[in-house]
Amino acid sequence: MEKIRVGLFGFGRTGKIVANEFVKDNSFSLKWVVRKTHKDEHKFATDLLGFEFEEGEIFSVDEINGSFFKDKPVDIIVDFANSIAVNHYAKAAELGIKIISAISNYKEKDLETLSSLSSKTAVLYSPNITLGINFLLIASQILQKIAPHADIEIVEEHFREKQDISGTAKKLASVLNLDQEKHVNSIRVGGIVGKHDVIFGLPNQTIRLTHESISRAAFGQGATFAAKWLIDKPAGLYSMEYIITDKFKRNIPVY
Amino acid sequence: MEKIRVGLFGFGRTGKIVANEFVKDNSFSLKWVVRKTHKDEHKFATDLLGFEFEEGEIFSVDEINGSFFKDKPVDIIVDFANSIAVNHYAKAAELGIKIISAISNYKEKDLETLSSLSSKTAVLYSPNITLGINFLLIASQILQKIAPHADIEIVEEHFREKQDISGTAKKLASVLNLDQEKHVNSIRVGGIVGKHDVIFGLPNQTIRLTHESISRAAFGQGATFAAKWLIDKPAGLYSMEYIITDKFKRNIPVY
Amino acid sequence: MEKIRVGLFGFGRTGKIVANEFVKDNSFSLKWVVRKTHKDEHKFATDLLGFEFEEGEIFSVDEINGSFFKDKPVDIIVDFANSIAVNHYAKAAELGIKIISAISNYKEKDLETLSSLSSKTAVLYSPNITLGINFLLIASQILQKIAPHADIEIVEEHFREKQDISGTAKKLASVLNLDQEKHVNSIRVGGIVGKHDVIFGLPNQTIRLTHESISRAAFGQGATFAAKWLIDKPAGLYSMEYIITDKFKRNIPVY
Amino acid sequence: MEKIRVGLFGFGRTGKIVANEFVKDNSFSLKWVVRKTHKDEHKFATDLLGFEFEEGEIFSVDEINGSFFKDKPVDIIVDFANSIAVNHYAKAAELGIKIISAISNYKEKDLETLSSLSSKTAVLYSPNITLGINFLLIASQILQKIAPHADIEIVEEHFREKQDISGTAKKLASVLNLDQEKHVNSIRVGGIVGKHDVIFGLPNQTIRLTHESISRAAFGQGATFAAKWLIDKPAGLYSMEYIITDKFKRNIPVY
Repeated sequence: MEKIRVGLFGFGRTGKIVANEFVKDNSFSLKWVVRKTHKDEHKFATDLLGFEFEEGEIFSVDEINGSFFKDKPVDIIVDFANSIAVNHYAKAAELGIKIISAISNYKEKDLETLSSLSSKTAVLYSPNITLGINFLLIASQILQKIAPHADIEIVEEHFREKQDISGTAKKLASVLNLDQEKHVNSIRVGGIVGKHDVIFGLPNQTIRLTHESISRAAFGQGATFAAKWLIDKPAGLYSMEYIITDKFKRNIPVY
Repeated sequence: MEKIRVGLFGFGRTGKIVANEFVKDNSFSLKWVVRKTHKDEHKFATDLLGFEFEEGEIFSVDEINGSFFKDKPVDIIVDFANSIAVNHYAKAAELGIKIISAISNYKEKDLETLSSLSSKTAVLYSPNITLGINFLLIASQILQKIAPHADIEIVEEHFREKQDISGTAKKLASVLNLDQEKHVNSIRVGGIVGKHDVIFGLPNQTIRLTHESISRAAFGQGATFAAKWLIDKPAGLYSMEYIITDKFKRNIPVY
Repeated sequence: MEKIRVGLFGFGRTGKIVANEFVKDNSFSLKWVVRKTHKDEHKFATDLLGFEFEEGEIFSVDEINGSFFKDKPVDIIVDFANSIAVNHYAKAAELGIKIISAISNYKEKDLETLSSLSSKTAVLYSPNITLGINFLLIASQILQKIAPHADIEIVEEHFREKQDISGTAKKLASVLNLDQEKHVNSIRVGGIVGKHDVIFGLPNQTIRLTHESISRAAFGQGATFAAKWLIDKPAGLYSMEYIITDKFKRNIPVY
Repeated sequence: MEKIRVGLFGFGRTGKIVANEFVKDNSFSLKWVVRKTHKDEHKFATDLLGFEFEEGEIFSVDEINGSFFKDKPVDIIVDFANSIAVNHYAKAAELGIKIISAISNYKEKDLETLSSLSSKTAVLYSPNITLGINFLLIASQILQKIAPHADIEIVEEHFREKQDISGTAKKLASVLNLDQEKHVNSIRVGGIVGKHDVIFGLPNQTIRLTHESISRAAFGQGATFAAKWLIDKPAGLYSMEYIITDKFKRNIPVY
C-alpha cells in the first residue's frame, strides 16, 4: 500500500513528539515540517529525532509561498503549531489536501476559516486528539443516559505546576452537564503526567472510567489514528469525537 | 400510572434483597413470593423485611397448582430461586406473564425450556443482571474494536472465601477473546464485596473500566431496571446485554 | 484464658454492630448493654442479633444506680452511645473498670471528665477507632517526614447524603498541616461506604495510601482490637493513635 | 556548604538519567563518569545531557589506574553500571571514598567484596534505590504486624515487554512471607512504567499501599537521597531499607 504523505506544522515540544510518531509508523511518509522560526532550517526532522534515515525536511513558515504545497505535495496536513498556520490552509485545501488541526487556542474567526475550508476538503479539528480521552467522553455520555440517577464526579490529576482545570475535565463536565465548580476535583501533585477519572455512583455499585497518560506521545498516536481515518473521507468538518462515535456505532456487539 | 405486579421466586439471601428492592420501588407491587420450603408460609415478605405495610404473601412451591397464576395474577415473574422454578414458567407464559430469570446453574434443557417459552411471552435471562457489569461488558468490547492493539488484562477482587474465578470475569474474558488462564487475575482478600477492573494498555496511555459492588442489592436494582424495560416488550428471548446494547445504540451522542 | 467481660453503652445502628463483633469474638463475654430508651429492656442483645445463646442483657440508662457496676461487674466499658454516658464513668473508674469511648460529639467538659478519670483507670478515647484509618494517620505523617518536598492531597469518597468533609479527612489534613479548604477533595456519589486516599506526589513517582471501608463493622473490630490492648494497661489516657504508634515502634524491621 | 563530589559508574540508559539528577541538584558536583566503552571519552556528561556548563568528564574503565581516585578525588562513588565496577572499589575505599551501589546482578563474591570494604568506608548497597518503593517495603511489614490476620496480595503492573515478576514484587513477597507464585499478580500491558500495589484485606476494610513510577529518574533521586544520607556516616554496610527504617524510627509521631 502506498504511504500517506504527511506535512507537519509545529516542531516544538509536542510537535517533535508527533513527528516521531509519524516517522515510526510505516503507513506514513513525513514529507516536511514547517516551524515558526528559522532554527534547523533544511535539516531533516529524522536526524534531529535520532533516526538513521532522512525524512521531514524542516522549513521556516516564511518559506511558504504560492507554490509550496504544489512543489512539495502531501496527502494530509497535521497542525500542532499554533493559530498562525490556519492562514495557510486555504491553498492546501484547494489542492484537496486533507487537514488535521489539534490547536486549542483558536479564535472565532479561525474556526470559521476551518469551517469554510471543509466544503473543499476533509478537515478534522480536535484540541484533544488522544484516543482514550475521546473514548471516555463518549462512554461517559452513554452511561449517563443508561443510569440517569447516578451521581457523577470527575477527578483529574496533573503535575504540580499545571494551572487551571484541565481542558479535558472541562469538556467532560460540559458534555455531562455537570457544574464544573462543584463536580470537578483537581489534584496537583509532583510529576503526574495526566489522569482523568469519571466516577458514577449508584446506591449499590460504583463505576469508574479512568484514563492515565504515560507520555505526550499519546497525542502523536491520536494524530496517526485520525490521519488513517480521515484519508479516504469526503469533504466535511470532522472531529475526534465524531470518529469515536462512528466507531461506537459500527462496533456495538450483537446479542 | 398503574404499578407493575410482580411475583418473585426465591427468598434466600439474595431473594430477600431483591424483594426489598421491588417493595421500595413505587413502580412495582410485589404480589407474592414463592420459596422452596414451608418456612414463613402465608406471612408477608414486607413484614419480614421490616416494612410497615403488607405485601408479598409467601407461598411454598408446593402450593403452585393449575390455577395459581390465574388466582394471583401478576405482570411479571422474577426468579432468583434455583432451576426448579423453571418448570412452573409454562403456565405463566400461557397467560402472557413476562419472565425474568437470573439463575446461573441452569442445565441445557432448562435453557431450552426458556427458549421455547419465548415464543409466547417476553423472557429475559441473565445470570448476572447488575447494570454496571453489563455496561463494562459492552463498553469493553467496543474499546477493543477501537484499539485492537491494546493489551487487555482483567483484575477481579473478592472476599477471601470465594472459590474460582468470578463468573463475571469469565464472561469478560470470553467476550474479549482473552485466555482466562493468562489474563484474569483473581485477588482474594478479606471482605471485598466484588470489584472488576478491565485494563487496556496502549504504549502511551492506559484506560481502566472499573466496577465496584457495594452490596448485593445491586442484583435487585438490576432486576427492577430489567422489569421496567421488559414490561412492554413483545414475545422473545432477551438478556441484560441485549438491553444495554440497545441503550448504547439509542444514546450514542451526535457530533 | 479467661474472657474479658464487656459492658456496652449504645445499641443504635452502630452500637448493634459493635455488640455483634464483641459477641462473635471468643476473647470477650458481653455482660450487658445500656441504652437510652426502655426499648427491648431485659431482652438479650444476642437474641436480637440472631445468635443462639443469651448474652448482653439490655438495660435502660435509668436503671444505672449506685451499685450497677458492682452488681454486674465487667472489666471494660465500651461506649458508642453519646455524650450522656460519660457521666456514669466515674463510678466504674473507681472500681478499676477500664473505659473505651468512641464518641465524637464530646464537649470540652466531657473531655475533662475523661482526663480526670484517667488517673484512676486506663481510659482510651478515639472518635475514629478504625484500625486502617489510624494506620493511614501514622504512616502518612512518617512519609511526610521522609519526603518533605512531596505534594500531598487527600481524596475522600462517601455516599451522596454525607454532609461536610469527613472527620477522618479533617484529622488527616490537620496532622499533615494541610489547608483543608485547598487539599481535601470530597467526592459524594451513590452509596460509597467510605474511602480515603492520601496522595504523595514526587517529581518521578506517586505514593498512595488508601483505606476503603466495607462495612461499619470496622468500628466494632477497632473496639475489640483496642479492648485487647487496653486490658492490661495501667491508669492513663490513651488513644487509637497511641496504640498504633506503639505498634509501629515495636515492629520496625531490623536491617 | 561545600558540594559533595560525586564519581559515577555507568552511562547507559539509567546511568544518564542518574547523572542528570546529580547535575541538577545543587548539593552535588559531578566530577567524572566512568563507562565500559570508549564512546564519548573525555567529553563532558553535562554537554551530552544538554546543560550549558561542563561537568562530569567521561572516562573509559580502561583508564582507571592506580592513581585515578587520587588524581580525581571524589567524596562518593555511585555505581549504576554493572558488576565489573566492584573490582575498582578497593582503591577508593582505602582513600575513604564512600560507595553507593545499585547493581542487581551481583554474584556472591561481589557481595563479599562489598561487605569486606565496609570495614573501611561507608558502603550502601540497594538494587532498588527508589524512595517510595522502600517506604512500601517498610510500611507493609509494619502493617502486617499490626494486622496479622489480614490477607495480603501484591499486584505489579509494567509495560508489555517486561519479563518475569518485578524484582520489587519479589522483594515485597519475600519480606511479607508470601508465596510469590500465589500472591503476586503481574499485569503486562502497553507502556506502563511501573506500578506496585500491596493490598491488605480485612473483613470490613481494605488498605492499599500503592507506588507508581512516572519515570526512571526516580532511581536518580533515590541515589541523591542516599548520597546525602551516607556522606557523614561511619564505615559500615548500609542499604536503602536501613535508611528508611532509620527515618521511621526518628519520625514516629508522639501521642
